[in-house]
Amino acid sequence: MLKALITTLTVSDVRFPTSLEQHGSDAMHADPDYSVAYVVIDTDLEKFKGFGLTFTVGRGTEIVVCAVKALSTLVIGKTLEEIVSDFRGFYRHLTNDGQMRWIGPEKGVIQLAAAAILNAIWDMWARAEGKDPKQLIRCIDFTYITDALTEQEALEDQMLEEGYPAYTTSCAWLGYSDEQLTQLCSTALGEGWTRFKVKVGADLQDDIRRCRLIRNMIGPQNTMMIDANQRWDVSEAISWVSSLAEFRPLWIEEPTSPDDILGHAAISKALAPLGIGVATGEQCHNRVMFKQFLQASALQFVQIDSCRVGSVNENLAIMLMAAKFKVPVCPHAGGVGLCELVQHLILFDYISVSASLENRTCEYVDHLHEHFKSPTVIRNACYIPPKDPGFSCEMLESSVRKHQFPHGEVWRHILAQKHTPIF
Amino acid sequence: MLKALITTLTVSDVRFPTSLEQHGSDAMHADPDYSVAYVVIDTDLEKFKGFGLTFTVGRGTEIVVCAVKALSTLVIGKTLEEIVSDFRGFYRHLTNDGQMRWIGPEKGVIQLAAAAILNAIWDMWARAEGKDPKQLIRCIDFTYITDALTEQEALEDQMLEEGYPAYTTSCAWLGYSDEQLTQLCSTALGEGWTRFKVKVGADLQDDIRRCRLIRNMIGPQNTMMIDANQRWDVSEAISWVSSLAEFRPLWIEEPTSPDDILGHAAISKALAPLGIGVATGEQCHNRVMFKQFLQASALQFVQIDSCRVGSVNENLAIMLMAAKFKVPVCPHAGGVGLCELVQHLILFDYISVSASLENRTCEYVDHLHEHFKSPTVIRNACYIPPKDPGFSCEMLESSVRKHQFPHGEVWRHILAQKHTPIF
Repeated sequence: MLKALITTLTVSDVRFPTSLEQHGSDAMHADPDYSVAYVVIDTDLEKFKGFGLTFTVGRGTEIVVCAVKALSTLVIGKTLEEIVSDFRGFYRHLTNDGQMRWIGPEKGVIQLAAAAILNAIWDMWARAEGKDPKQLIRCIDFTYITDALTEQEALEDQMLEEGYPAYTTSCAWLGYSDEQLTQLCSTALGEGWTRFKVKVGADLQDDIRRCRLIRNMIGPQNTMMIDANQRWDVSEAISWVSSLAEFRPLWIEEPTSPDDILGHAAISKALAPLGIGVATGEQCHNRVMFKQFLQASALQFVQIDSCRVGSVNENLAIMLMAAKFKVPVCPHAGGVGLCELVQHLILFDYISVSASLENRTCEYVDHLHEHFKSPTVIRNACYIPPKDPGFSCEMLESSVRKHQFPHGEVWRHILAQKHTPIF
Repeated sequence: MLKALITTLTVSDVRFPTSLEQHGSDAMHADPDYSVAYVVIDTDLEKFKGFGLTFTVGRGTEIVVCAVKALSTLVIGKTLEEIVSDFRGFYRHLTNDGQMRWIGPEKGVIQLAAAAILNAIWDMWARAEGKDPKQLIRCIDFTYITDALTEQEALEDQMLEEGYPAYTTSCAWLGYSDEQLTQLCSTALGEGWTRFKVKVGADLQDDIRRCRLIRNMIGPQNTMMIDANQRWDVSEAISWVSSLAEFRPLWIEEPTSPDDILGHAAISKALAPLGIGVATGEQCHNRVMFKQFLQASALQFVQIDSCRVGSVNENLAIMLMAAKFKVPVCPHAGGVGLCELVQHLILFDYISVSASLENRTCEYVDHLHEHFKSPTVIRNACYIPPKDPGFSCEMLESSVRKHQFPHGEVWRHILAQKHTPIF
């Protein structure tokens, strides 16, 4: 199947009206409609396709769709073999077009679009090789050998059986009432969750009340993280988080601008005596930024994202750098399809790079998995390695059709009620 | 006119086929077609409009156009007065939409699109106030007062008469032959130019030959800068530029990734003993990045751009920070309309912020000015302050019509010859 010729690339604007129930709400994104630019690559081999996506939060998805269309001219007409035999070269071809790089470079819309396409290529490649996770793991290990190699088989078996430890963000979105928090947290504890993330940053007194509520419910032995979604400036972040130190958060996530490396370094330094680390990465736009975050000791947890940067290619560079700087990788997930995608990366990180679970956990959000053909499997608060070949982001055709924006039936209905102009 | 209601915002994809003659070619952009996403804002007052643009280099302009359309929903229906009476609030409204910020934030396509719209708003505002430069200068001075205030009137007069010193990039694009370099440089010397920028970075031996040629022509008393357009990694930049030190460049521009603050700091430190500064900024995507470049002593020349960041609003923040850190501002220009726009910013910087010409010069490229209603005026290698009210980026309707991509007559002709697929 490596000889397959890419004949068409289609992209859809697929949106889920999550804002109606405040799922995903935080201090900077009050009303996200979780969405994807969804890519399907067709080949000249019948039924041999690749599926990829990038995650967005509603308005603006059409811009990413437009960017995917522009980049698709660099993909159509190539064989899978041409691409993967010099994948680094293809990566640069896609991300460094002499004209299109100007509107990035390697950041924002154009990088999100590249990620959607690259995710689909990786999906095709995994399908072409017919890889189940065991085979995939062996393949990747062989390519990127590390000190952990001698323990590999044992690690594989343990991981495939018990899974990779996850934390949940589903309990404490900013827009949820205290009653919702209590009920969701109670349910999660019953399901075996031990790590809980709380959204903060809009109002300090609210944050104190919500953090106290969660800490009281989960007890001293479980883990809490807090997430401000870029709400503060540097000095504000330090004083605000210091006021929440009594609740012993493991980390403060996105305390300030995702571009502010030196600001994160200052925050890290100030919070270290309180035992609170800094986590960031979901909006860190490329490997050059991660490099500096690591060089400047500006984060203590690297939150890679499967769609923000250039897919597996760029995330491999980031995971290897994190290992070199001895900083744990704790991926960002949730959204639409991010859990499905990132579980592959975190398994790779564990088995081939870090060989450690110390201070490591992968985000999980229990939303929208029902729209995928091979949804994430969580057991005892752990990601269980996926069984189907591919990158796990193929969506159900009916889900894509219904949620197309603006003409799918879900949106036709909502927009008719709202009398909202579409553009 | 402040009461004018914004009724429509139209945006056009306007491209100039500059790649046909290698104008604008450099080490990373071999074949740019200089382009703009061109914005016209209409109001309920007849003939009261605003004109704005953002610069691009060809393919991908349609993505920026798509982003402008998405952002236009945040502008239409507002009055100019509503916007300018809380311009900071409007800026955040435009750049921090709870859904669209995800695909930035404040970077890449979405920030370029915001710049095009904001440039048009500033244009409207200046027209509404009927400001000629003297009035504009007085207005801005009043708003942003500095230590230089007492010398203001004298400075104004001198500036309006003699203009702001410029340097030329027109002589030494990377794709030009040595014969072209010689001829263009000779002409420029005859016109009174004293500062010359040379594109480098593709091949060291070529660079040595070209730099020697230019230095020999301009003599020891004139100024030369070199520009690598992000071609190198950090250590490569240091060794390559060291090999060109004998030609005494004032600065090396964009030696590496525009995102690599710490890398630029390392390069600055290594080149300081050679008397060579580091200049960057044309792809520095927001004030947070500039802040860090300044904090880390990572540049010695701040190259603001009128379209990369959020228009006057964000550039004011950058110019004020540069002044605080005592680093001169030497704007990026050229492209399409960048000279027309940036001349306003540099006058403001001189008169209201820095009050100095030491180490300061503004880029000038002698291309495509004929498409503007009030093109830049250069006299004795200086920008002469513009006389017409507004932000000087209104284009000729005939130019816009002919160069619309892909259906304007210029492109219909080129594409028919090339048999090139458009998308």
